[in-house]
Amino acid sequence: MPRQCLTQTRLRKNNVKFYDCKTAPSPRRVRIFAAEKGVELQTIAIDLASGEQFRPEFRQINPDCVVPVLELDDGTRITEVLAICQYLEEQHPEPTLFGHTAVERAVTLMWNVKVEQQGFMAAADAFRNAAKGLKNHALPGTEQYAQIPELAERGRRRITTFFEKINRQLIDHEFLTGDQFTIADISALVVVDFAARLKMNIADNATDLRRWHDAVSSRPSASA
Amino acid sequence: MPRQCLTQTRLRKNNVKFYDCKTAPSPRRVRIFAAEKGVELQTIAIDLASGEQFRPEFRQINPDCVVPVLELDDGTRITEVLAICQYLEEQHPEPTLFGHTAVERAVTLMWNVKVEQQGFMAAADAFRNAAKGLKNHALPGTEQYAQIPELAERGRRRITTFFEKINRQLIDHEFLTGDQFTIADISALVVVDFAARLKMNIADNATDLRRWHDAVSSRPSASA
Repeated sequence: MPRQCLTQTRLRKNNVKFYDCKTAPSPRRVRIFAAEKGVELQTIAIDLASGEQFRPEFRQINPDCVVPVLELDDGTRITEVLAICQYLEEQHPEPTLFGHTAVERAVTLMWNVKVEQQGFMAAADAFRNAAKGLKNHALPGTEQYAQIPELAERGRRRITTFFEKINRQLIDHEFLTGDQFTIADISALVVVDFAARLKMNIADNATDLRRWHDAVSSRPSASA
Repeated sequence: MPRQCLTQTRLRKNNVKFYDCKTAPSPRRVRIFAAEKGVELQTIAIDLASGEQFRPEFRQINPDCVVPVLELDDGTRITEVLAICQYLEEQHPEPTLFGHTAVERAVTLMWNVKVEQQGFMAAADAFRNAAKGLKNHALPGTEQYAQIPELAERGRRRITTFFEKINRQLIDHEFLTGDQFTIADISALVVVDFAARLKMNIADNATDLRRWHDAVSSRPSASA
């Protein structure tokens, strides 16, 4: 595939660096996105489990102390999954993961926001407010915030509601926004797999959500 | 200004409808964005105070029961502030509020996400978990969620941290992302004004945040 090799070369030549953590859901969204584009990222692993994100070396990379971060060859550091993915989309437009037209792009972004706010945030609340290792880290970053057990519980309830919502959407859509696989599907896949780690699984009667999850999980990018 | 008149005519001819609520912070972000573009939106007011967003007529417009919504002439309904603003940006590219280059656009989007997650969500938590009228509406939408007082308190603490963060960023930047006014400034302006309603004001020693707030508040769009 000449195009794929070309884009790989371009990224490598530009010395783009990707600060990653294999076990964390946010950077996985970027890894899947890049894999769908055929872009290989030069990865620097940050060990969140040992608190490497709080060490002075990484604070200089991202004062928010979170991954992912994409560092460009001019030194610009892009944090936040959506911003990184949009940059990769602009550098490697095809296959598009944001949509071909202004309306498609708006609908894709709309769904991505819904997945982020209603799905991802709910799973993060459920996880961070209950995990034993995160006692005073109920939010990512340098500030210490005590866990709020009601928030963990609310997060679990919201995950159920979110699964019902996307199951309804998938009844007459192959993917979340229609017949094209987009960044919104990547975000939703990562939410579903994140929720599974919290023992929140797809309900037996959510047949469309299951059909979609089987399909997106079987794409080679899902193992990125 | 011929361009402004042209864009106004175009939007009107297309029968784009904007579902709005004058008192709510989220739709204000779109109103300011449109005003900066010189775009006049055909507005349909939804009275959130009386619960109009939960009536069957509006549920058909947006099952999530929130404003803003932009309804296109083909019937497509775009919800979520970022998606609506991106659509308006594509229809009316100048003056850009997302940036001119791929790097500018990534940095702008990154800051917009930070403002949304660290500022807007914090203010929303502080407001919704304490407001007397929102007892079982600690989250927007149709599902009932009880208020969590610790979450209101955490939200207030996070607003203080957020204000310190953007004050630091503004020490050597005229606007949040550099020398251009962008969507990130609009989002941050709305957060600061939202926080003021919660009696969370800019600290006396946050001189750069105050300088920036004075400047962006004095733009004609701020009254939109």
